Amino acid sequence: MMTLQAPEAELSIADLNSTLRDPALETMNFLNEVSARFPDAISFAAGRPCEEYFDLDALPRYLRLFEEYLATEERADGAQIGRTLLQYGRTKGIIHKLLARHLWLDERIDVDPETIVVTVGCQEAMFLVLHALCASKDDIVLAVSPSYVGLTGAARLAGCEVWPVRENEHGVDLEHFVMQVAAARSQGKRPRAFYLVPDFANPSGLSLDLGTRKSLLSLAEQQGILLLEDNPYGLFQADDGSRVPTLKALDTTRRVVYLGSLAKTCFPGARVGFVVADQRVAAGNQRTELLADELSKIKSMLTVNTPPLAQAIAGGRLLEHGCCLVQANQREIAAYRHNMRILLSGLEQRFGNPRLKVSWNTPAGGFFAVVTVPFAANSEALELSARRYGLLWTPMMYFYDGEGGENQLRLSISVLRPAQIEDGLDRLLALVEDSLRSTHAENVRPEPTITPGAG
Amino acid sequence: MMTLQAPEAELSIADLNSTLRDPALETMNFLNEVSARFPDAISFAAGRPCEEYFDLDALPRYLRLFEEYLATEERADGAQIGRTLLQYGRTKGIIHKLLARHLWLDERIDVDPETIVVTVGCQEAMFLVLHALCASKDDIVLAVSPSYVGLTGAARLAGCEVWPVRENEHGVDLEHFVMQVAAARSQGKRPRAFYLVPDFANPSGLSLDLGTRKSLLSLAEQQGILLLEDNPYGLFQADDGSRVPTLKALDTTRRVVYLGSLAKTCFPGARVGFVVADQRVAAGNQRTELLADELSKIKSMLTVNTPPLAQAIAGGRLLEHGCCLVQANQREIAAYRHNMRILLSGLEQRFGNPRLKVSWNTPAGGFFAVVTVPFAANSEALELSARRYGLLWTPMMYFYDGEGGENQLRLSISVLRPAQIEDGLDRLLALVEDSLRSTHAENVRPEPTITPGAG
Repeated sequence: MMTLQAPEAELSIADLNSTLRDPALETMNFLNEVSARFPDAISFAAGRPCEEYFDLDALPRYLRLFEEYLATEERADGAQIGRTLLQYGRTKGIIHKLLARHLWLDERIDVDPETIVVTVGCQEAMFLVLHALCASKDDIVLAVSPSYVGLTGAARLAGCEVWPVRENEHGVDLEHFVMQVAAARSQGKRPRAFYLVPDFANPSGLSLDLGTRKSLLSLAEQQGILLLEDNPYGLFQADDGSRVPTLKALDTTRRVVYLGSLAKTCFPGARVGFVVADQRVAAGNQRTELLADELSKIKSMLTVNTPPLAQAIAGGRLLEHGCCLVQANQREIAAYRHNMRILLSGLEQRFGNPRLKVSWNTPAGGFFAVVTVPFAANSEALELSARRYGLLWTPMMYFYDGEGGENQLRLSISVLRPAQIEDGLDRLLALVEDSLRSTHAENVRPEPTITPGAG
Repeated sequence: MMTLQAPEAELSIADLNSTLRDPALETMNFLNEVSARFPDAISFAAGRPCEEYFDLDALPRYLRLFEEYLATEERADGAQIGRTLLQYGRTKGIIHKLLARHLWLDERIDVDPETIVVTVGCQEAMFLVLHALCASKDDIVLAVSPSYVGLTGAARLAGCEVWPVRENEHGVDLEHFVMQVAAARSQGKRPRAFYLVPDFANPSGLSLDLGTRKSLLSLAEQQGILLLEDNPYGLFQADDGSRVPTLKALDTTRRVVYLGSLAKTCFPGARVGFVVADQRVAAGNQRTELLADELSKIKSMLTVNTPPLAQAIAGGRLLEHGCCLVQANQREIAAYRHNMRILLSGLEQRFGNPRLKVSWNTPAGGFFAVVTVPFAANSEALELSARRYGLLWTPMMYFYDGEGGENQLRLSISVLRPAQIEDGLDRLLALVEDSLRSTHAENVRPEPTITPGAG
């Protein structure tokens, strides 16, 4: 049926939306391509959750549990249950009450289920929030830099500039936050929100201490700026009680829009995320509406609703554990914790000698750590690392819009087993030693200046 | 945890994106609200598919069928199957090969599976296409008017103006299409694409005849404009062989971007749609890429991927019927057909007398017909119809951006049973008769001019 015409194309990239020429797309494509070319390499690059406890046999059980919940707690009859799972449905979702229970049990976040919008992964939630908040070209969002690429992508689609706020050893440089807000305003911009991952950030692994959280909340209040708290890794914490409350749990003035994801705590294949948006919106005529309802209106034009079947399966997993995801993830939490310890002690064993010019930070949980190395950690170095050493990692420079991270790698421990981590670190050691003996390194250039890491 | 503060709101609607002040949102909200207030009314308003054959017990079987497909046809082992369903996955989707088979079997559309992007309902597909094509504020999309509200919504989000093209008895007024393209260009606009539902359109129920399709394809070619063919109802046709090929099946020059939906042919609860975008994009350096791959890049920033679990369930239903959705929908096709016959003959029986000043069109399939009535078919009339007559319908004026449809209703037959259709038409007759006896009608104003329908 398809006739192959002359080799001319029907369209030109120059005539398509400029988001398609975003350099971040190129770097992510490169990363995927290198990963695909070296499938046997040990990958510290992938931020995916571990697959060891994936259980296909549980899926019908999850569906049944959710159907039983509808029957008993929502008093739905058979036709209503069928309609809830299979028909068009509530734009804000069908597992909002279960998510509210989870937020209370696991995070001590107390919210009305009506303030929750269930989304197609956290990615859609970010787009909805940025699209809603950015009313004009002058509206900007601030984000901790290095930034999660998903936030940058959502902002590009929403047509919203991202202004970086520096990280420091407390997770975020509050002075720089205030400076950037002032700088934006002096240029006629309107900073609407500040995005950050306060627990075990992607990519840096850093967490905010309690004092920083409280200061940030009060600064955001003073500045009239919302905080967008993204929390995909908070559950995967150290067992020493060191974790501090989320911003949303500390929020008494509806200053925080909370972005949640079940990708790591249930499974990515459901693509279920959510946003808690309890802010009130003056809608004219003395009416106030929830920001959640505004987001829901945008969602109705974007994806209509999050697949009820996917929500039902995620909901069943929540129900199986009384909506406590810490309980549901006992094995995963232990595995990630163990992996992080292996990584940090393995780094110490191999790179403790200052001669190697390697430093690293020491996250108390989560998936990621950042290693500073004595070479330019760019795409060429990554390709060489994969080809010659069978080792993949993510250049930290991919997470900066502009300068930053030139000598740093992000290492992720989430899909590896302890032996692979040890093996991978041996390979990293070989790569570093060869780069120091610069004659060996065809593409890896030793650099005189080393950016200090936190560890 | 939440402290109730002073009654001031944190945000004002005036500071949020103007898409939230779209009048179309108000009318759709009104429709939902009236429907909710009168749950016992007979609803010709809902365009949802019939629920009679929804089968929750089939869901585990669909999952298993899809897992078996991965094992046998894709030679996946257990770990790979688990990963495909539960892990992050291919941005373009995992049921593309099954959809390509369906397109060939049911529509004689012959496309490479790589040109398909599986989306979160057709709604996301529309956004992806419009976002990709609209590179600047001057890029516009044309759409048959009256238009599907989903297209209008996606265009609002993508920041893309929609220019109307008139309908006529052949489905679309081709002269007006050419005129609008010229008018747009004379204003410095760049028309990128023309959206239409060639088979049993929503809302009008009209279909394009073969001659019109061929003319439209050649006009689009001449004008350098893509056609966006949306086809959610094509399968639900009369059994008299009258249906003509889709635009995509007739397309030999990759002029057509095909938008598909499984909402009506599987179930809406999977929220699985797709787009076929086989256009080649010149990407610089002699490289060409598929438009599908560009859409996939945008999708990676919007929803990452369509929930694999939802795709797997829809895929299982496809597999159970050898990917032939006509076969899968035998009962549904018969039911919709029967309902449409009941509707059209019921209209004839009750409104054949010209005294009643009612006319209607006669779709050969699909969910919708349009009735022209001797009163202003606006929100007030709808509210009165619901309250006094227990009857819901959709004002056609909701589907126009500007003037049009003032005396017309859309009637949908998809979720009703034949007896309800008869009952509903009795109620409509009472409403019309009362409106003619204008003293009775408090809000329904008889109008001297009647827009002629096609029937």
